[in-house]
Amino acid sequence: MTDPLVSWNDGVAKQAILDFVANVTTPNRPSFVPPGDRIAVFDNDGTLWVEQPLYVQAFFVFDRVQQLAPQYPEWQTQEPFASVLKGDLKSAMAGGESALLELVMATHAGMTTDEFAAIAKDWLSTAKHPTLRRPYPELVYQPMLELLAYLQAHDFKNFIVSGGGVEFMRACTEQIYGVPPEQVIGSSNKTQYEWRDGKPVILRLPELYFFNDKAGKPAAIQHYIGRRPLAAFGNSDGDLQMLQWTTAGSGASLGMIVRHTDGDREFAYDQGSMSSLKQALVDAEKEGWVIVDMKRDWKQVFPFEQ
Amino acid sequence: MTDPLVSWNDGVAKQAILDFVANVTTPNRPSFVPPGDRIAVFDNDGTLWVEQPLYVQAFFVFDRVQQLAPQYPEWQTQEPFASVLKGDLKSAMAGGESALLELVMATHAGMTTDEFAAIAKDWLSTAKHPTLRRPYPELVYQPMLELLAYLQAHDFKNFIVSGGGVEFMRACTEQIYGVPPEQVIGSSNKTQYEWRDGKPVILRLPELYFFNDKAGKPAAIQHYIGRRPLAAFGNSDGDLQMLQWTTAGSGASLGMIVRHTDGDREFAYDQGSMSSLKQALVDAEKEGWVIVDMKRDWKQVFPFEQ
Repeated sequence: MTDPLVSWNDGVAKQAILDFVANVTTPNRPSFVPPGDRIAVFDNDGTLWVEQPLYVQAFFVFDRVQQLAPQYPEWQTQEPFASVLKGDLKSAMAGGESALLELVMATHAGMTTDEFAAIAKDWLSTAKHPTLRRPYPELVYQPMLELLAYLQAHDFKNFIVSGGGVEFMRACTEQIYGVPPEQVIGSSNKTQYEWRDGKPVILRLPELYFFNDKAGKPAAIQHYIGRRPLAAFGNSDGDLQMLQWTTAGSGASLGMIVRHTDGDREFAYDQGSMSSLKQALVDAEKEGWVIVDMKRDWKQVFPFEQ
Repeated sequence: MTDPLVSWNDGVAKQAILDFVANVTTPNRPSFVPPGDRIAVFDNDGTLWVEQPLYVQAFFVFDRVQQLAPQYPEWQTQEPFASVLKGDLKSAMAGGESALLELVMATHAGMTTDEFAAIAKDWLSTAKHPTLRRPYPELVYQPMLELLAYLQAHDFKNFIVSGGGVEFMRACTEQIYGVPPEQVIGSSNKTQYEWRDGKPVILRLPELYFFNDKAGKPAAIQHYIGRRPLAAFGNSDGDLQMLQWTTAGSGASLGMIVRHTDGDREFAYDQGSMSSLKQALVDAEKEGWVIVDMKRDWKQVFPFEQ
């Protein structure tokens, strides 16, 4: 039999996946779970694709600001837009979460959902990562693609549960992960149904509807999926509650944390500032969550490596 | 070949379903849609199961008020609770939507999601319809069960898109319709993730999060499913926008409206007051939506009929 996880080195992490899947899919084991009930949830940024030096969606925001700037002359002097237009992302981010939200709303609203999907798809197919010099959809982790496919082949429904914008992610998640739009849960804008030129449209409003992070993740899992997952994969404290909720069920479960330890092949920022990973690591041992150390556990990081 | 829609009389409605499914599932037809993209959306109350003399969930609310009353002595004199406790549902409903919302919040919040699921399941398995004298899960429409199964057999994903409470519906939708929890979209309470006795729980708060009706339905379809359905089934003006959105796509689509015309086998309240059906009927002709006349089109209404 071919190894379904060929990019994983033998070790605790790979074995934990194989054991877990055997436990829930082998009939007559007490840990067996019927196919329809097999749900797995995945964080996206830093778990399935790169999040360094910034979230992919942040680069999308900055490019959109550049693109829209001619329509908004006031942005030349108004923060955080002025810093973005000067290419000074550090200053742009100095305003923290509220500055980021302002940038997102200015660039992700005012168009229909169909128009936004086209904008996001176009950007994702053309924009390139600043240092890796490849389109972002190529910057996914090969071992995680194998894991997604392995679970799907064993009748799991894979869901993405990410802080990223749901419609931004949907512009590429089916293509790159094989996860259909209805299995993508993310942050969202408010929307409004209305008529334009004799056709119904759904308009994106410049107002946050739901921010899918931390304690919002298990609440969203219950709200959108309606049952507890068997497996959860994350890489930061933003995934802590999702890991807790997933592994607090009565049956077999798997919680996994990806650690970014490989500065040669990817980025070494373990416990770093992009998305803090502290409490989840502290809890991992007592909760039995399995650590994936990229440097140690992954034979190959990106699909394009030889 | 056995007739997949055996409880449907031959006629325009049945033929429209068969033609639509042939059009989107026959390879090489220009109207062909790949299996993964086949989404169908169904209203629940009055489309898949009875909604007369009141919504099923309203009976659940009233029974819950009776059950909880000993803990709330003030309800004996406080409306709308006092009228419910006297069995005077007409007076209880006199306060309109805000009275109903108050009743729902008083009976659907303050417990964990797991506790609520158990309460709803217990009620659904024991409570009986006031005139039909059967548990509500038996009061589903046999022709619609056949339609759900027929679409599913042709690789459609069926979603319920209803104004009913999502967690109330999920307590029975998999069992009665074969629709898993993650394919049920409804109205919802706000929730909160927290710890109780060393375990994480999701607490239901007494506050409306989303009301899934009218223009909210297409917005919810985009939000939860992320793509336009091919087929929509409803029975009231609450489904008007969902029908519009579904059939405004560029490819083949099917919009259907169930009319309650059969006072002998079910309830005759076509265009009646429970859930008004006026504008959707006016628009049906120009939009090409197909009318299902229960009296004319359904050979059998309920599964228990001989």
